[in-house]
Amino acid sequence: MTNSATNLRLKLPMACIILEVIIIILFGTLVQYDDETDAKLWHKEIANGSSNYDNDFYYRYPSFQDVHVMIFIGFGFLMTFLQRYGFSSVGFNFLIAAFALQWATLMQGFFHGMHGGKIHVGIESMINADFCTGSVLISFGAVLGKTSPVQLLVMSVIEVTLFAVNEFIVLTVLGAKDAGGSMTIHTFGAYFGLMVARVLYRPNLDKSKHKNCSVYHSDLFAMIGTIYLWMFWPSFNSAVTAHGDDQHRTAMNTYYSLAACTLATYGLSAVVAHDGKLDMVHIQNAALAGGVAVGTAGEMMLTPFGSMIVGFLAGTISVLGFKFLSPILEQKLKIQDTCGVHNLHGMPGVLGAIVGAVTAALATKEVYGDGLLPLLRNRQTPASFQGIRQAISLAVTLGIALLGGLITGFILKLPIYGAPPDTICFEDGIYWELPGEEGSHEELTTVRTPDEAEKLNA
Amino acid sequence: MTNSATNLRLKLPMACIILEVIIIILFGTLVQYDDETDAKLWHKEIANGSSNYDNDFYYRYPSFQDVHVMIFIGFGFLMTFLQRYGFSSVGFNFLIAAFALQWATLMQGFFHGMHGGKIHVGIESMINADFCTGSVLISFGAVLGKTSPVQLLVMSVIEVTLFAVNEFIVLTVLGAKDAGGSMTIHTFGAYFGLMVARVLYRPNLDKSKHKNCSVYHSDLFAMIGTIYLWMFWPSFNSAVTAHGDDQHRTAMNTYYSLAACTLATYGLSAVVAHDGKLDMVHIQNAALAGGVAVGTAGEMMLTPFGSMIVGFLAGTISVLGFKFLSPILEQKLKIQDTCGVHNLHGMPGVLGAIVGAVTAALATKEVYGDGLLPLLRNRQTPASFQGIRQAISLAVTLGIALLGGLITGFILKLPIYGAPPDTICFEDGIYWELPGEEGSHEELTTVRTPDEAEKLNA
Amino acid sequence: MTNSATNLRLKLPMACIILEVIIIILFGTLVQYDDETDAKLWHKEIANGSSNYDNDFYYRYPSFQDVHVMIFIGFGFLMTFLQRYGFSSVGFNFLIAAFALQWATLMQGFFHGMHGGKIHVGIESMINADFCTGSVLISFGAVLGKTSPVQLLVMSVIEVTLFAVNEFIVLTVLGAKDAGGSMTIHTFGAYFGLMVARVLYRPNLDKSKHKNCSVYHSDLFAMIGTIYLWMFWPSFNSAVTAHGDDQHRTAMNTYYSLAACTLATYGLSAVVAHDGKLDMVHIQNAALAGGVAVGTAGEMMLTPFGSMIVGFLAGTISVLGFKFLSPILEQKLKIQDTCGVHNLHGMPGVLGAIVGAVTAALATKEVYGDGLLPLLRNRQTPASFQGIRQAISLAVTLGIALLGGLITGFILKLPIYGAPPDTICFEDGIYWELPGEEGSHEELTTVRTPDEAEKLNA
Repeated sequence: MTNSATNLRLKLPMACIILEVIIIILFGTLVQYDDETDAKLWHKEIANGSSNYDNDFYYRYPSFQDVHVMIFIGFGFLMTFLQRYGFSSVGFNFLIAAFALQWATLMQGFFHGMHGGKIHVGIESMINADFCTGSVLISFGAVLGKTSPVQLLVMSVIEVTLFAVNEFIVLTVLGAKDAGGSMTIHTFGAYFGLMVARVLYRPNLDKSKHKNCSVYHSDLFAMIGTIYLWMFWPSFNSAVTAHGDDQHRTAMNTYYSLAACTLATYGLSAVVAHDGKLDMVHIQNAALAGGVAVGTAGEMMLTPFGSMIVGFLAGTISVLGFKFLSPILEQKLKIQDTCGVHNLHGMPGVLGAIVGAVTAALATKEVYGDGLLPLLRNRQTPASFQGIRQAISLAVTLGIALLGGLITGFILKLPIYGAPPDTICFEDGIYWELPGEEGSHEELTTVRTPDEAEKLNA
Repeated sequence: MTNSATNLRLKLPMACIILEVIIIILFGTLVQYDDETDAKLWHKEIANGSSNYDNDFYYRYPSFQDVHVMIFIGFGFLMTFLQRYGFSSVGFNFLIAAFALQWATLMQGFFHGMHGGKIHVGIESMINADFCTGSVLISFGAVLGKTSPVQLLVMSVIEVTLFAVNEFIVLTVLGAKDAGGSMTIHTFGAYFGLMVARVLYRPNLDKSKHKNCSVYHSDLFAMIGTIYLWMFWPSFNSAVTAHGDDQHRTAMNTYYSLAACTLATYGLSAVVAHDGKLDMVHIQNAALAGGVAVGTAGEMMLTPFGSMIVGFLAGTISVLGFKFLSPILEQKLKIQDTCGVHNLHGMPGVLGAIVGAVTAALATKEVYGDGLLPLLRNRQTPASFQGIRQAISLAVTLGIALLGGLITGFILKLPIYGAPPDTICFEDGIYWELPGEEGSHEELTTVRTPDEAEKLNA
Repeated sequence: MTNSATNLRLKLPMACIILEVIIIILFGTLVQYDDETDAKLWHKEIANGSSNYDNDFYYRYPSFQDVHVMIFIGFGFLMTFLQRYGFSSVGFNFLIAAFALQWATLMQGFFHGMHGGKIHVGIESMINADFCTGSVLISFGAVLGKTSPVQLLVMSVIEVTLFAVNEFIVLTVLGAKDAGGSMTIHTFGAYFGLMVARVLYRPNLDKSKHKNCSVYHSDLFAMIGTIYLWMFWPSFNSAVTAHGDDQHRTAMNTYYSLAACTLATYGLSAVVAHDGKLDMVHIQNAALAGGVAVGTAGEMMLTPFGSMIVGFLAGTISVLGFKFLSPILEQKLKIQDTCGVHNLHGMPGVLGAIVGAVTAALATKEVYGDGLLPLLRNRQTPASFQGIRQAISLAVTLGIALLGGLITGFILKLPIYGAPPDTICFEDGIYWELPGEEGSHEELTTVRTPDEAEKLNA
């Protein structure tokens, strides 16, 4: 299972070390502590009457850690459903997330406004970097099993950069609201990844098809990922919203949307699956669509009632997507979407963007009171303008994602990254030393026969 | 493994979708944001001098997320110990929890006081809904492996409703303290579930007995559940206590109780188990009894010393319960308690109620200072009255739980819910599409049947 | 697999129960709530104008819970990589952590200053107790698979005591800074454990060598531990630093150090491992070295740039240590370091101590402003003195750890603790009742090939 084309002894170290050295140099020249992490500046604020307890650390860090768990455990384990790709799922997720959060700090810092030529970092930049990383991991889901870690790092370099560009246009230029990233994270990551998968289409992937499925325990590992994503999604959507009622409301709307989505998912799964049985693919994925779909409107006065309707719809379209749309995507559009990110992040992301535009357009002073101003970027224009800004943002996001994915796909197609051959996709052994891979006759988790046990005790 | 009686293609979707539609309608007509989540109302408080940082979100949400993890990961994975019931354990836990938290919001909102005909929701209602859900999951443990998801949903509808009634009587009418729910959550959930299990008694369950045991990896998955429950129990018991010293003290008392309980559990397990070896069943369950047993008194001045004694006792009775009482329950009382919830939640819950009554009765102004008043619901009566209120609450809880479980059991006995036959209990394949249901010769984790075990020991 | 020498029916219960009874008695006589957990004292502060929201619970408890997860899930699952030692890894980790945190509360309370003859407890003592426990678990990693739980409890008694002595000397007498414990936790725990392993050297351990390796799923369980440690390390290093910028900065420095460390680890692993493939041992361990190495300097103005360089170095020496140093340690120095704690905690801990000393020595008023004072224990001496204090602290820590480990090793060598024989090391069956140890032909985790699937659907 080793050959020179996929041997990474030089390629991976070069990629990792060169990228990290570049990052370290850029951090050395560009990055500074912000007012809340710099000893001198913060103590000036203390001298001026602030309290240490006012430090934003206390109001953002718990949310940050929840997001962090979603990125590293949630995404990482969600993708372990493949029978022999668990090391790569968790391991490459770990690698590209660790890279992307550093690169994102630089790219987002550059676009979101430098301070005297310097990028300021603190808890908010950490959350935003994790968010951008989430987008890359969504794209990873589309190409899971068919790419080398070097390809994934190259993809991350480009995707993070374009993410920051798109985020800048959507949030800063257009002034849209998208705290939970229905557009900037989910729609962007999904369509970027689907386009990469399209360009990297493998007509002979069925040679690896016996590996492209789960086994009993791999599905249980994947449920660890699912449940963590589900539980902490309220923190994800609320992590960077305004303090106070905004953050509180966003978390609660997400909580209700996910709960309703879960019931829709179970109901629909039993309808469409074989023999009225539940399908783990639906449970692992579609039950999360409710979080995606309130990523934009969650901070608005969507109400628990509205959140539940959105969640219910999201779960429904997600299950139906897995059942009816994914086969079409693969056969007609030649998009081999390993994890079904179109169903979990793509369609629910677009739904979320639309819900956000409509909800913003309907905002009134009667409902929001003084809370209306934080919602609208431009305080002189009516709420309906905000709705238009949101809608344009969706179009821009789709455009940049698709075009970016197209270009990235062609770059990743160069035969220099050690990509796996069609016959050895979805297989850890190509990039990982596996226990008991050679030599030994031990089976994976057995099981000593009584005879062996006796000999051993003798 | 498919037959029409257990085919859920119609039953489960109908249950899920009808219930969710009812919930959405009720939320639309009855539920409103509370003062801290409503944009208009909160911004009024801001205008009156409040700070966004005063929003209760920051003082309750981290605890909420810990509780959330206990409900979905803790309970879900704790029950994966069965060799072929992991999908159902995590998956049905997920389903009924997602349903129950919505239903609980309505029922608790209804009983805990409407505001102008509306139920107000915010972080406290979210925690309380998760708590109520915990109670349902305890009952689920008693009937694990022997019920269809439709039965579980029906059980949840009734149990959540009765939980809210009992909670109203105990906390509001009787004025008892029970922040961590020794009575309202653990005692209620356990005896309700045991009564349901009694009514659903299956004389021929031994036809499935070779499935009613663990395998090596399933026990490791279960330990994920155990450890998460153990770690976050301090957050559970303190999540809705009064702010300040109460919350701080409750978390700490629980921490010490659990630590002492764990040592008692290991010690006792080695005493009673076969050959001086440790038994995973004890470690997975009894080590948690210390959290249950300080669910009432944890917020009081129990002291670390007192907490440890209670924890030590709880671990002891729990291990002894598994060893000596569970077989009697099954053979004499015909209660087939799959997870042993009587040992983890039943007896330790009653112990916790008693400890709470005694500790409350002994409260003095000397020890509590001005902190005495928050403890006593009625400030005119002496502490001993509070002890009596606590004791009556335990009796009421037991009564409602047993009667409610009885009625629920008979409702669940109707042959319309697709319950599994005696021969296919404890088996995922009846409700889930399984990967690799048949076929290959690879073994990954094997199983000892009782017969084989006997031969082995011979 | 049972014999009287390793039968723990008497030994383990006696150890657990006697120790717990001693602890309870000492808690009864010595331990009191502190000002923030005592109802009377806290309500006095409230009466004097404090707010319940000022209680330190809200500023430390989320960090505490993250640390708690690292101790029980992080360490526990990291050690499940062994194929047949998962019950013991998680289970003994659980037992000795539950014991050590109680004992540590007493020992640290005794050395860190009694209050009128009483030990005061609150959230800070809980974090510190968990920290001390972490040190014991590091030592556990060195002797994993070769010790009985009774030996581990005895080791914990001594190690916790010496930890408290060393911590007192380093932090109080010498006035060093070491919030994340590069010295007091990692260096101490590693060299203590390595010395114990040296004394317990087993020349015939190769009789169990076929068990001293991982299998596919055990490596995935171990990744749960790794990822949790990695994610929450920022909370670990910042949990007891000063409030405000200190805590904020420490978390962020750790975040960047770990990210850089991860890229170094992947790069180096592919260089040194067989055939250019990645080695799970490196990923599981070396990627964490970045957290260890900023355990001292993380709270200083190390800058993200500096943190990344330290992390990169730490990952590098850790991977190289696993590849080149561990075999030498085993063959020449006769130290059988099961988990490679020398590579994860030993060398990175020393690196962290040195980085801390240098960073402290270079601190200036220009950079720290008024934030300089909290850094220096002695405000009259220049920063370079602080550097010297740090350096001496490293030497003291190494001395106490090595000497303590030596003595402890000889105590553990007494043939009275039920230690496993050389032939049955790394094997759960010796201390645990195992499910399905042998036997049946049922498959649990099999795979359906496309052909089989077709037949099935036909």
